[in-house]
Amino acid sequence: MKDKKNSVEVCYSPALYPYYRNDDAIVVISDILRATTAICAAFENGVKNLIPVSGLDEAMALKKKGYLVAAERDGLVLDFADFGNSPFNFHPEQVKDQTIVYSTTNGTQAIMMAAEARHVAVGAFINLTALAQWLITRRCDVLVLCAGWRNRYNLEDSVFAGALAEALIRSGRFFTDCDAAVAAIELWEIARYDLTGYMEKAAHRHRLKKLGLDDIMQYCHTPDSTTVIPVLKGNLLVEHKDY
Amino acid sequence: MKDKKNSVEVCYSPALYPYYRNDDAIVVISDILRATTAICAAFENGVKNLIPVSGLDEAMALKKKGYLVAAERDGLVLDFADFGNSPFNFHPEQVKDQTIVYSTTNGTQAIMMAAEARHVAVGAFINLTALAQWLITRRCDVLVLCAGWRNRYNLEDSVFAGALAEALIRSGRFFTDCDAAVAAIELWEIARYDLTGYMEKAAHRHRLKKLGLDDIMQYCHTPDSTTVIPVLKGNLLVEHKDY
Repeated sequence: MKDKKNSVEVCYSPALYPYYRNDDAIVVISDILRATTAICAAFENGVKNLIPVSGLDEAMALKKKGYLVAAERDGLVLDFADFGNSPFNFHPEQVKDQTIVYSTTNGTQAIMMAAEARHVAVGAFINLTALAQWLITRRCDVLVLCAGWRNRYNLEDSVFAGALAEALIRSGRFFTDCDAAVAAIELWEIARYDLTGYMEKAAHRHRLKKLGLDDIMQYCHTPDSTTVIPVLKGNLLVEHKDY
Repeated sequence: MKDKKNSVEVCYSPALYPYYRNDDAIVVISDILRATTAICAAFENGVKNLIPVSGLDEAMALKKKGYLVAAERDGLVLDFADFGNSPFNFHPEQVKDQTIVYSTTNGTQAIMMAAEARHVAVGAFINLTALAQWLITRRCDVLVLCAGWRNRYNLEDSVFAGALAEALIRSGRFFTDCDAAVAAIELWEIARYDLTGYMEKAAHRHRLKKLGLDDIMQYCHTPDSTTVIPVLKGNLLVEHKDY
Protein backbone atom coordinates (compact mmCIF):
# COMPACT_ATOMS: atom_id res chain seq x y z
CA MET A 1 0.00 0.00 0.00
CA LYS A 2 2.98 2.26 0.61
CA ASP A 3 3.44 2.58 -3.13
CA LYS A 4 -0.18 3.21 -4.07
CA LYS A 5 -0.34 6.19 -6.42
CA ASN A 6 -2.56 9.16 -5.73
CA SER A 7 -4.83 10.74 -8.28
CA VAL A 8 -4.53 14.23 -9.74
CA GLU A 9 -7.61 15.83 -11.28
CA VAL A 10 -8.43 19.24 -12.75
CA CYS A 11 -11.68 21.21 -12.44
CA TYR A 12 -12.00 24.05 -14.96
CA SER A 13 -14.54 26.24 -13.18
CA PRO A 14 -15.94 26.85 -9.68
CA ALA A 15 -19.35 25.97 -11.19
CA LEU A 16 -18.08 22.43 -11.87
CA TYR A 17 -16.65 21.91 -8.39
CA PRO A 18 -19.59 19.78 -7.13
CA TYR A 19 -18.78 17.21 -9.85
CA TYR A 20 -15.10 16.97 -8.87
CA ARG A 21 -15.27 17.48 -5.13
CA ASN A 22 -13.03 15.16 -3.10
CA ASP A 23 -12.67 16.23 0.51
CA ASP A 24 -9.76 13.80 1.01
CA ALA A 25 -7.74 15.76 -1.55
CA ILE A 26 -5.54 18.80 -1.31
CA VAL A 27 -7.23 21.41 -3.49
CA VAL A 28 -4.86 23.76 -5.31
CA ILE A 29 -6.41 27.05 -6.45
CA SER A 30 -5.23 28.42 -9.82
CA ASP A 31 -6.05 32.07 -10.58
CA ILE A 32 -2.89 33.11 -12.42
CA LEU A 33 -4.04 36.58 -13.58
CA ARG A 34 -3.76 37.74 -10.87
CA ALA A 35 -5.04 36.55 -7.47
CA THR A 36 -2.97 33.43 -6.78
CA THR A 37 0.18 34.99 -8.25
CA ALA A 38 -0.31 38.12 -6.12
CA ILE A 39 -0.94 36.04 -2.97
CA CYS A 40 2.32 34.14 -3.50
CA ALA A 41 4.14 37.45 -4.14
CA ALA A 42 2.75 38.89 -0.91
CA PHE A 43 4.13 35.98 1.14
CA GLU A 44 7.43 36.13 -0.72
CA ASN A 45 7.67 39.75 0.43
CA GLY A 46 7.10 38.87 4.07
CA VAL A 47 3.33 39.18 4.64
CA LYS A 48 2.41 37.22 7.78
CA ASN A 49 -1.06 36.24 6.72
CA LEU A 50 -3.74 37.27 4.31
CA ILE A 51 -7.52 37.48 4.48
CA PRO A 52 -9.10 36.76 1.09
CA VAL A 53 -12.49 38.49 0.69
CA SER A 54 -14.81 38.61 -2.29
CA GLY A 55 -16.88 41.75 -1.62
CA LEU A 56 -15.74 45.35 -1.32
CA ASP A 57 -18.09 45.89 1.65
CA GLU A 58 -16.22 43.24 3.59
CA ALA A 59 -12.87 44.77 2.59
CA MET A 60 -14.06 48.21 3.71
CA ALA A 61 -15.31 46.89 7.05
CA LEU A 62 -11.94 45.25 7.71
CA LYS A 63 -10.14 48.47 6.73
CA LYS A 64 -12.12 50.27 9.44
CA LYS A 65 -10.87 47.68 11.91
CA GLY A 66 -7.32 48.72 11.04
CA TYR A 67 -6.22 46.14 8.45
CA LEU A 68 -4.13 46.94 5.40
CA VAL A 69 -6.31 46.35 2.34
CA ALA A 70 -5.49 45.50 -1.28
CA ALA A 71 -8.48 46.26 -3.50
CA GLU A 72 -9.21 47.68 -6.91
CA ARG A 73 -11.93 47.71 -9.49
CA ASP A 74 -11.30 48.18 -13.20
CA GLY A 75 -7.63 48.80 -12.53
CA LEU A 76 -8.06 51.70 -10.12
CA VAL A 77 -6.98 51.47 -6.50
CA LEU A 78 -10.06 52.27 -4.44
CA ASP A 79 -10.05 55.34 -2.22
CA PHE A 80 -10.15 53.38 1.01
CA ALA A 81 -7.51 50.81 -0.01
CA ASP A 82 -3.76 50.80 0.69
CA PHE A 83 -2.76 48.84 -2.43
CA GLY A 84 -4.10 47.61 -5.72
CA ASN A 85 -4.30 43.89 -6.51
CA SER A 86 -1.13 43.62 -8.55
CA PRO A 87 1.63 41.23 -7.42
CA PHE A 88 3.96 44.25 -7.74
CA ASN A 89 2.20 46.14 -4.93
CA PHE A 90 3.60 44.30 -1.95
CA HIS A 91 6.90 45.95 -1.03
CA PRO A 92 8.69 44.29 1.91
CA GLU A 93 9.12 47.54 3.84
CA GLN A 94 5.33 48.03 3.85
CA VAL A 95 4.03 44.51 4.28
CA LYS A 96 6.57 42.53 6.33
CA ASP A 97 4.85 40.67 9.20
CA GLN A 98 1.52 42.32 8.40
CA THR A 99 -1.94 40.90 7.81
CA ILE A 100 -3.34 42.03 4.48
CA VAL A 101 -6.94 41.91 3.31
CA TYR A 102 -6.99 40.96 -0.38
CA SER A 103 -10.18 41.62 -2.30
CA THR A 104 -10.71 39.43 -5.35
CA THR A 105 -13.78 37.93 -6.96
CA ASN A 106 -13.01 34.72 -8.88
CA GLY A 107 -10.05 33.72 -6.69
CA THR A 108 -11.73 34.10 -3.31
CA GLN A 109 -14.84 32.28 -4.46
CA ALA A 110 -12.69 29.32 -5.47
CA ILE A 111 -10.62 29.36 -2.26
CA MET A 112 -13.65 29.46 0.05
CA MET A 113 -15.70 26.83 -1.79
CA ALA A 114 -12.91 24.29 -1.23
CA ALA A 115 -12.66 25.03 2.52
CA GLU A 116 -13.90 21.53 3.49
CA ALA A 117 -11.06 19.79 1.65
CA ARG A 118 -8.07 18.28 3.48
CA HIS A 119 -6.01 21.36 2.64
CA VAL A 120 -6.43 24.32 0.29
CA ALA A 121 -3.17 25.56 -1.26
CA VAL A 122 -2.47 28.55 -3.49
CA GLY A 123 -0.78 27.70 -6.79
CA ALA A 124 0.88 29.87 -9.43
CA PHE A 125 3.68 29.51 -11.94
CA ILE A 126 5.87 31.51 -9.55
CA ASN A 127 5.71 28.73 -6.88
CA LEU A 128 5.25 25.75 -9.24
CA THR A 129 8.23 23.58 -8.31
CA ALA A 130 8.08 24.20 -4.56
CA LEU A 131 4.35 23.42 -4.57
CA ALA A 132 4.81 20.24 -6.62
CA GLN A 133 7.57 19.02 -4.30
CA TRP A 134 5.43 19.66 -1.23
CA LEU A 135 2.41 17.87 -2.77
CA ILE A 136 4.56 14.85 -3.67
CA THR A 137 5.43 14.38 0.02
CA ARG A 138 1.80 14.64 1.19
CA ARG A 139 0.61 11.23 -0.05
CA CYS A 140 -2.90 12.29 -0.84
CA ASP A 141 -4.99 13.09 -3.91
CA VAL A 142 -4.72 16.49 -5.56
CA LEU A 143 -7.48 18.47 -7.27
CA VAL A 144 -6.54 21.65 -9.13
CA LEU A 145 -9.47 24.09 -9.07
CA CYS A 146 -9.24 26.78 -11.76
CA ALA A 147 -10.88 30.04 -10.73
CA GLY A 148 -11.70 30.83 -14.36
CA TRP A 149 -13.40 34.03 -15.46
CA ARG A 150 -16.96 34.41 -14.17
CA ASN A 151 -17.27 30.62 -14.16
CA ARG A 152 -16.02 30.31 -17.75
CA TYR A 153 -12.96 28.29 -18.69
CA ASN A 154 -9.74 30.24 -19.05
CA LEU A 155 -6.44 29.42 -20.65
CA GLU A 156 -3.86 30.63 -18.12
CA ASP A 157 -5.41 28.82 -15.12
CA SER A 158 -5.71 25.61 -17.16
CA VAL A 159 -2.13 25.73 -18.45
CA PHE A 160 -0.92 26.08 -14.87
CA ALA A 161 -3.11 23.11 -13.88
CA GLY A 162 -1.42 21.12 -16.65
CA ALA A 163 2.05 22.16 -15.50
CA LEU A 164 1.34 21.00 -11.95
CA ALA A 165 -0.35 17.76 -13.03
CA GLU A 166 2.58 16.94 -15.32
CA ALA A 167 5.10 17.52 -12.51
CA LEU A 168 3.12 15.29 -10.13
CA ILE A 169 2.72 12.44 -12.65
CA ARG A 170 6.40 12.70 -13.65
CA SER A 171 7.32 12.04 -10.00
CA GLY A 172 5.85 8.54 -10.30
CA ARG A 173 3.62 9.12 -7.24
CA PHE A 174 0.54 10.25 -9.13
CA PHE A 175 -1.72 9.04 -11.94
CA THR A 176 -4.72 10.56 -13.66
CA ASP A 177 -7.85 9.22 -15.30
CA CYS A 178 -9.32 12.72 -15.55
CA ASP A 179 -9.82 13.99 -19.11
CA ALA A 180 -9.50 17.61 -17.98
CA ALA A 181 -6.05 16.84 -16.54
CA VAL A 182 -5.03 15.08 -19.79
CA ALA A 183 -6.11 18.12 -21.85
CA ALA A 184 -4.42 20.59 -19.49
CA ILE A 185 -1.14 18.69 -19.76
CA GLU A 186 -1.36 18.84 -23.57
CA LEU A 187 -1.71 22.63 -23.40
CA TRP A 188 1.22 22.91 -20.98
CA GLU A 189 3.38 20.88 -23.37
CA ILE A 190 2.54 23.36 -26.17
CA ALA A 191 2.96 26.48 -24.03
CA ARG A 192 5.88 25.68 -21.75
CA TYR A 193 8.78 26.90 -23.90
CA ASP A 194 7.32 30.38 -24.30
CA LEU A 195 4.61 30.81 -21.70
CA THR A 196 4.31 34.59 -21.90
CA GLY A 197 4.16 34.46 -25.69
CA TYR A 198 1.58 31.66 -25.61
CA MET A 199 -0.67 33.67 -23.33
CA GLU A 200 -1.19 36.21 -26.14
CA LYS A 201 -3.96 33.75 -27.04
CA ALA A 202 -5.74 34.22 -23.71
CA ALA A 203 -8.83 36.43 -23.57
CA HIS A 204 -8.00 37.77 -20.11
CA ARG A 205 -4.60 38.96 -21.27
CA HIS A 206 -6.45 41.34 -23.61
CA ARG A 207 -8.84 42.48 -20.88
CA LEU A 208 -5.80 43.42 -18.75
CA LYS A 209 -4.11 45.18 -21.66
CA LYS A 210 -7.15 47.41 -22.20
CA LEU A 211 -6.99 48.31 -18.51
CA GLY A 212 -3.23 49.00 -18.64
CA LEU A 213 -2.64 46.11 -16.22
CA ASP A 214 -0.58 43.87 -18.45
CA ASP A 215 2.81 44.83 -17.01
CA ILE A 216 2.58 41.66 -14.92
CA MET A 217 2.39 39.16 -17.80
CA GLN A 218 6.07 38.19 -17.75
CA TYR A 219 6.20 37.92 -13.95
CA CYS A 220 3.01 35.81 -13.73
CA HIS A 221 4.29 33.37 -16.36
CA THR A 222 7.87 32.90 -15.14
CA PRO A 223 8.14 29.75 -13.02
CA ASP A 224 9.80 29.43 -9.64
CA SER A 225 10.63 32.93 -8.47
CA THR A 226 9.49 31.88 -4.98
CA THR A 227 9.24 28.81 -2.75
CA VAL A 228 6.33 30.00 -0.59
CA ILE A 229 3.25 27.78 -0.33
CA PRO A 230 0.24 29.67 1.01
CA VAL A 231 -2.43 27.43 2.57
CA LEU A 232 -5.86 28.12 4.03
CA LYS A 233 -6.18 27.93 7.82
CA GLY A 234 -9.73 28.79 8.88
CA ASN A 235 -10.45 31.84 6.77
CA LEU A 236 -6.83 33.04 6.77
CA LEU A 237 -4.11 32.25 4.25
CA VAL A 238 -0.79 31.47 5.95
CA GLU A 239 2.58 30.09 4.84
CA HIS A 240 2.38 26.29 5.13
CA LYS A 241 5.31 26.33 7.56
CA ASP A 242 3.10 28.35 9.94
CA TYR A 243 0.12 26.02 9.60
CA MET B 1 -22.06 44.79 -42.29
CA LYS B 2 -22.31 42.01 -44.83
CA ASP B 3 -18.79 40.92 -43.97
CA LYS B 4 -19.09 41.03 -40.19
CA LYS B 5 -17.67 37.83 -38.72
CA ASN B 6 -19.64 35.67 -36.34
CA SER B 7 -18.32 34.28 -33.11
CA VAL B 8 -17.75 30.61 -32.29
CA GLU B 9 -17.57 29.57 -28.65
CA VAL B 10 -17.26 26.26 -26.80
CA CYS B 11 -18.95 25.24 -23.53
CA TYR B 12 -17.40 22.16 -21.91
CA SER B 13 -20.30 21.03 -19.73
CA PRO B 14 -24.09 21.43 -19.47
CA ALA B 15 -23.42 22.83 -15.96
CA LEU B 16 -21.55 25.77 -17.56
CA TYR B 17 -24.26 26.53 -20.12
CA PRO B 18 -25.72 29.52 -18.18
CA TYR B 19 -22.33 31.27 -18.51
CA TYR B 20 -22.16 30.76 -22.31
CA ARG B 21 -25.82 30.99 -23.25
CA ASN B 22 -26.49 33.00 -26.39
CA ASP B 23 -30.01 32.56 -27.73
CA ASP B 24 -29.06 34.25 -31.01
CA ALA B 25 -26.62 31.42 -31.70
CA ILE B 26 -26.97 28.02 -33.28
CA VAL B 27 -26.07 25.56 -30.54
CA VAL B 28 -24.29 22.41 -31.74
CA ILE B 29 -24.47 19.45 -29.33
CA SER B 30 -21.36 17.26 -29.08
CA ASP B 31 -21.78 13.85 -27.42
CA ILE B 32 -19.45 11.75 -29.56
CA LEU B 33 -19.55 8.51 -27.51
CA ARG B 34 -22.30 7.82 -28.42
CA ALA B 35 -25.49 9.89 -28.57
CA THR B 36 -24.78 12.47 -31.26
CA THR B 37 -22.92 9.96 -33.43
CA ALA B 38 -25.81 7.48 -33.10
CA ILE B 39 -28.39 10.17 -33.93
CA CYS B 40 -26.53 11.09 -37.13
CA ALA B 41 -26.24 7.37 -38.01
CA ALA B 42 -29.98 6.92 -37.51
CA PHE B 43 -30.79 9.73 -39.99
CA GLU B 44 -28.17 8.42 -42.42
CA ASN B 45 -30.07 5.13 -42.36
CA GLY B 46 -33.39 6.76 -43.18
CA VAL B 47 -35.04 7.50 -39.83
CA LYS B 48 -37.73 10.14 -40.36
CA ASN B 49 -37.48 11.75 -36.96
CA LEU B 50 -36.23 11.00 -33.51
CA ILE B 51 -37.50 11.77 -30.02
CA PRO B 52 -34.63 12.23 -27.55
CA VAL B 53 -35.63 11.35 -23.98
CA SER B 54 -33.54 11.24 -20.82
CA GLY B 55 -35.52 8.88 -18.56
CA LEU B 56 -36.38 5.22 -19.08
CA ASP B 57 -39.92 5.83 -17.78
CA GLU B 58 -40.53 8.25 -20.62
CA ALA B 59 -39.05 5.78 -23.13
CA MET B 60 -41.27 3.00 -21.79
CA ALA B 61 -44.40 5.17 -21.94
CA LEU B 62 -43.66 6.02 -25.59
CA LYS B 63 -43.06 2.34 -26.36
CA LYS B 64 -46.56 1.59 -25.09
CA LYS B 65 -47.87 4.21 -27.52
CA GLY B 66 -46.30 2.19 -30.35
CA TYR B 67 -42.98 3.92 -30.98
CA LEU B 68 -39.77 2.10 -31.78
CA VAL B 69 -37.39 2.63 -28.85
CA ALA B 70 -33.58 2.59 -28.58
CA ALA B 71 -32.53 2.20 -24.94
CA GLU B 72 -29.91 0.42 -22.91
CA ARG B 73 -28.28 0.60 -19.53
CA ASP B 74 -24.79 -0.71 -18.83
CA GLY B 75 -24.55 -2.07 -22.34
CA LEU B 76 -27.64 -4.30 -22.20
CA VAL B 77 -30.62 -3.67 -24.44
CA LEU B 78 -33.58 -3.31 -22.12
CA ASP B 79 -36.44 -5.83 -22.31
CA PHE B 80 -38.96 -3.37 -23.61
CA ALA B 81 -36.65 -1.74 -26.18
CA ASP B 82 -36.24 -2.52 -29.90
CA PHE B 83 -32.59 -1.47 -30.16
CA GLY B 84 -29.59 -0.57 -28.04
CA ASN B 85 -27.98 2.89 -28.25
CA SER B 86 -25.12 2.01 -30.59
CA PRO B 87 -24.81 3.80 -33.95
CA PHE B 88 -24.62 0.29 -35.46
CA ASN B 89 -28.19 -0.58 -34.41
CA PHE B 90 -30.11 1.37 -37.01
CA HIS B 91 -30.46 -0.85 -40.09
CA PRO B 92 -32.27 0.82 -43.01
CA GLU B 93 -34.76 -2.02 -43.45
CA GLN B 94 -35.94 -1.57 -39.85
CA VAL B 95 -35.82 2.20 -39.42
CA LYS B 96 -36.54 3.81 -42.79
CA ASP B 97 -39.21 6.52 -42.47
CA GLN B 98 -39.81 5.62 -38.82
CA THR B 99 -39.89 7.73 -35.67
CA ILE B 100 -37.45 6.39 -33.08
CA VAL B 101 -37.34 7.20 -29.38
CA TYR B 102 -33.70 7.45 -28.29
CA SER B 103 -32.97 7.26 -24.59
CA THR B 104 -29.74 8.93 -23.48
CA THR B 105 -28.74 10.82 -20.36
CA ASN B 106 -25.95 13.35 -21.02
CA GLY B 107 -26.91 13.96 -24.67
CA THR B 108 -30.62 14.61 -24.14
CA GLN B 109 -29.97 16.91 -21.21
CA ALA B 110 -27.69 19.01 -23.41
CA ILE B 111 -30.10 19.04 -26.37
CA MET B 112 -33.12 20.11 -24.31
CA MET B 113 -31.35 22.79 -22.26
CA ALA B 114 -30.46 24.60 -25.49
CA ALA B 115 -34.05 24.52 -26.81
CA GLU B 116 -34.43 28.34 -26.60
CA ALA B 117 -31.50 28.95 -28.96
CA ARG B 118 -32.00 29.99 -32.59
CA HIS B 119 -31.40 26.40 -33.70
CA VAL B 120 -30.06 23.28 -32.01
CA ALA B 121 -28.03 21.00 -34.29
CA VAL B 122 -26.49 17.60 -33.67
CA GLY B 123 -22.74 17.39 -34.32
CA ALA B 124 -20.37 14.43 -34.62
CA PHE B 125 -17.17 13.65 -36.46
CA ILE B 126 -19.27 11.64 -38.92
CA ASN B 127 -21.10 14.78 -40.13
CA LEU B 128 -18.31 17.32 -39.47
CA THR B 129 -17.80 18.82 -42.94
CA ALA B 130 -21.48 18.94 -43.89
CA LEU B 131 -22.33 20.60 -40.57
CA ALA B 132 -19.51 23.15 -40.91
CA GLN B 133 -20.59 24.06 -44.45
CA TRP B 134 -24.20 24.51 -43.34
CA LEU B 135 -23.17 26.68 -40.36
CA ILE B 136 -20.99 28.87 -42.61
CA THR B 137 -24.06 29.75 -44.71
CA ARG B 138 -26.22 30.61 -41.67
CA ARG B 139 -24.57 33.95 -40.77
CA CYS B 140 -25.08 33.65 -37.05
CA ASP B 141 -23.00 32.86 -33.97
CA VAL B 142 -22.22 29.25 -33.08
CA LEU B 143 -21.90 27.75 -29.60
CA VAL B 144 -20.69 24.15 -29.30
CA LEU B 145 -22.17 22.55 -26.16
CA CYS B 146 -20.27 19.46 -25.02
CA ALA B 147 -22.49 16.94 -23.26
CA GLY B 148 -19.56 15.74 -21.16
CA TRP B 149 -19.80 12.91 -18.64
CA ARG B 150 -22.07 13.66 -15.69
CA ASN B 151 -21.24 17.35 -16.09
CA ARG B 152 -17.48 16.69 -16.13
CA TYR B 153 -15.26 17.70 -19.02
CA ASN B 154 -14.49 14.99 -21.56
CA LEU B 155 -11.89 14.66 -24.23
CA GLU B 156 -13.82 13.34 -27.24
CA ASP B 157 -16.58 15.98 -27.11
CA SER B 158 -13.98 18.74 -26.74
CA VAL B 159 -11.82 17.52 -29.62
CA PHE B 160 -14.90 17.53 -31.86
CA ALA B 161 -15.68 21.07 -30.68
CA GLY B 162 -12.14 22.05 -31.69
CA ALA B 163 -12.52 20.42 -35.10
CA LEU B 164 -15.72 22.32 -35.81
CA ALA B 165 -14.39 25.64 -34.46
CA GLU B 166 -11.25 25.28 -36.58
CA ALA B 167 -13.29 24.62 -39.72
CA LEU B 168 -15.50 27.66 -39.07
CA ILE B 169 -12.58 30.01 -38.39
CA ARG B 170 -10.68 28.68 -41.42
CA SER B 171 -13.64 29.73 -43.59
CA GLY B 172 -12.92 33.37 -42.75
CA ARG B 173 -16.52 33.92 -41.61
CA PHE B 174 -15.92 33.27 -37.91
CA PHE B 175 -13.64 34.48 -35.12
CA THR B 176 -13.25 33.45 -31.49
CA ASP B 177 -12.27 35.20 -28.29
CA CYS B 178 -13.31 32.20 -26.21
CA ASP B 179 -10.46 30.47 -24.37
CA ALA B 180 -12.31 27.15 -24.39
CA ALA B 181 -12.49 27.29 -28.19
CA VAL B 182 -8.76 28.13 -28.39
CA ALA B 183 -7.89 25.15 -26.17
CA ALA B 184 -10.23 22.79 -28.07
CA ILE B 185 -8.59 23.75 -31.37
CA GLU B 186 -5.16 22.98 -29.89
CA LEU B 187 -6.35 19.49 -28.95
CA TRP B 188 -7.84 18.92 -32.40
CA GLU B 189 -4.52 19.89 -34.00
CA ILE B 190 -2.76 17.24 -31.86
CA ALA B 191 -5.39 14.55 -32.39
CA ARG B 192 -6.50 15.01 -35.98
CA TYR B 193 -4.01 12.76 -37.76
CA ASP B 194 -4.89 9.71 -35.65
CA LEU B 195 -8.17 10.44 -33.92
CA THR B 196 -9.00 6.87 -32.89
CA GLY B 197 -5.49 6.36 -31.54
CA TYR B 198 -5.59 9.66 -29.66
CA MET B 199 -8.83 8.71 -27.95
CA GLU B 200 -7.01 5.94 -26.12
CA LYS B 201 -6.33 8.79 -23.69
CA ALA B 202 -10.03 9.38 -23.04
CA ALA B 203 -11.55 8.06 -19.82
CA HIS B 204 -14.88 7.18 -21.48
CA ARG B 205 -13.15 5.00 -24.05
CA HIS B 206 -12.07 2.77 -21.13
CA ARG B 207 -15.56 2.75 -19.61
CA LEU B 208 -16.93 1.51 -22.96
CA LYS B 209 -14.19 -1.11 -23.26
CA LYS B 210 -15.09 -2.59 -19.89
CA LEU B 211 -18.71 -2.82 -21.07
CA GLY B 212 -17.71 -4.42 -24.39
CA LEU B 213 -19.06 -1.37 -26.23
CA ASP B 214 -15.85 -0.14 -27.80
CA ASP B 215 -16.49 -1.64 -31.25
CA ILE B 216 -17.71 1.82 -32.28
CA MET B 217 -14.46 3.74 -31.62
CA GLN B 218 -13.24 3.76 -35.22
CA TYR B 219 -16.66 4.66 -36.64
CA CYS B 220 -17.24 7.49 -34.15
CA HIS B 221 -13.84 9.04 -34.90
CA THR B 222 -13.85 8.82 -38.70
CA PRO B 223 -14.98 12.13 -40.19
CA ASP B 224 -17.55 12.62 -42.91
CA SER B 225 -19.30 9.30 -43.44
CA THR B 226 -22.60 11.19 -43.70
CA THR B 227 -23.99 14.58 -44.76
CA VAL B 228 -27.10 14.56 -42.54
CA ILE B 229 -27.64 17.49 -40.17
CA PRO B 230 -30.19 16.66 -37.47
CA VAL B 231 -31.83 19.74 -35.90
CA LEU B 232 -34.31 20.19 -33.07
CA LYS B 233 -37.87 21.12 -34.03
CA GLY B 234 -40.04 21.37 -30.93
CA ASN B 235 -39.07 18.25 -29.05
CA LEU B 236 -38.33 16.23 -32.18
CA LEU B 237 -35.06 15.86 -34.03
CA VAL B 238 -35.49 16.08 -37.80
CA GLU B 239 -33.19 16.35 -40.82
CA HIS B 240 -32.58 20.08 -41.42
CA LYS B 241 -34.02 19.75 -44.92
CA ASP B 242 -37.36 18.81 -43.29
CA TYR B 243 -37.30 21.70 -40.84
